Amino acid sequence: MTSPTPKKVDITKPVLSKNDALAASNRARFANTGALVLNMISSPGSGKTTLLESMGRVLGGRLAVIEGDVRTQRDADRLRASGIRADQIETEGACHLNAQRVAGALDVMRFDDDPTEILVIENVGNLVCPSSFDLGEHMKLALLSLPEGDDKVLKYPAIFGRIGVLLVTKIDLLPHLDFDVDRVVRECASLNDHFKTFRLSAKTGEGVATFCDFLLAERAKLAGG
Amino acid sequence: MTSPTPKKVDITKPVLSKNDALAASNRARFANTGALVLNMISSPGSGKTTLLESMGRVLGGRLAVIEGDVRTQRDADRLRASGIRADQIETEGACHLNAQRVAGALDVMRFDDDPTEILVIENVGNLVCPSSFDLGEHMKLALLSLPEGDDKVLKYPAIFGRIGVLLVTKIDLLPHLDFDVDRVVRECASLNDHFKTFRLSAKTGEGVATFCDFLLAERAKLAGG
Repeated sequence: MTSPTPKKVDITKPVLSKNDALAASNRARFANTGALVLNMISSPGSGKTTLLESMGRVLGGRLAVIEGDVRTQRDADRLRASGIRADQIETEGACHLNAQRVAGALDVMRFDDDPTEILVIENVGNLVCPSSFDLGEHMKLALLSLPEGDDKVLKYPAIFGRIGVLLVTKIDLLPHLDFDVDRVVRECASLNDHFKTFRLSAKTGEGVATFCDFLLAERAKLAGG
Repeated sequence: MTSPTPKKVDITKPVLSKNDALAASNRARFANTGALVLNMISSPGSGKTTLLESMGRVLGGRLAVIEGDVRTQRDADRLRASGIRADQIETEGACHLNAQRVAGALDVMRFDDDPTEILVIENVGNLVCPSSFDLGEHMKLALLSLPEGDDKVLKYPAIFGRIGVLLVTKIDLLPHLDFDVDRVVRECASLNDHFKTFRLSAKTGEGVATFCDFLLAERAKLAGG
């Protein structure tokens, strides 16, 4: 007597399909207001929140932020203290944001009646898991900071293969560290033929205005401008 | 007419139970050789591999390493180049190691007949997902490097609540960064009452020998020495 063969069920499929449907709903809300929406991904400590503070000084009320962390309201508190509209999602253990949590934050922020031109969704600090979940954004950004080392791109191909923008951050440390920016860009180009690179220092401000100009131009393209 | 209530299935349970059984099997193998086994967890770029190179200079042939990355053999290649016995696991997309992959690496290394006294399993660079998966180790270590910022502990409570050792790394940068080591230790103590802290610089060597002495003493305790 043989046991019946157990059926194999791909448990990842329905989760992603549900997320994709909710991401499409978010995308429609973004299209309705005309905001450019970015999904910002990096390791913990690459400088995402510090860069957002710096972007707020350039973009003023044009910028709003949805913050994602496993726990704490720390990042949204920091941004609000510098005058940026921000809502915090606490994922309560989950290693990435999903479209449903983002939809909830959009409701809290009353996004649909909001003058936001650039909405940045700062994902949980994690270079692996956030890369697979569409939030409805127009573009994924990855930050790679100099202290993390120039060998990281090919170790984390899922994210670096999907980004529209690579931000090489803490560039002010370049004289003090052995970091080859060209290697990073070259390895990213081996995975991805449609990304732009910016070299930034939120500390000195280097590159931040240029990056913000790029975002405003991308937003104008959405409006057919 | 009402639809039947769908049954709720906790899909995380069977995965963890299978992993726990395999972790117990790994633990028995570790007990058999008497090696102390550490599960090393941090963000990408906190200095795990560089610290292991530095530990190799202190521990010599007493140390062996299992490397975990999503992709590439880069880290094991680096360690072997500095004379450390090392095997690389590529998780092919998975965001953490599991006990099964570690068991496979133990086979490849012929661990059961090996003179290793300290085995370090360097997990995938990720502060979230690796914290939930037992590999059979005696102790979890977390690295937090100064450039990541001193606000990270409460954002990632699952790992900082479970560690036996907190390694504050790149401590040579302390004069140049606004980083409060006491805050990090205090916040970790709010989650965890059984961890030890070491302040290290793999670059200058500060603290590395002291940390290695601690590991050898822990290993002697396993042997009842």
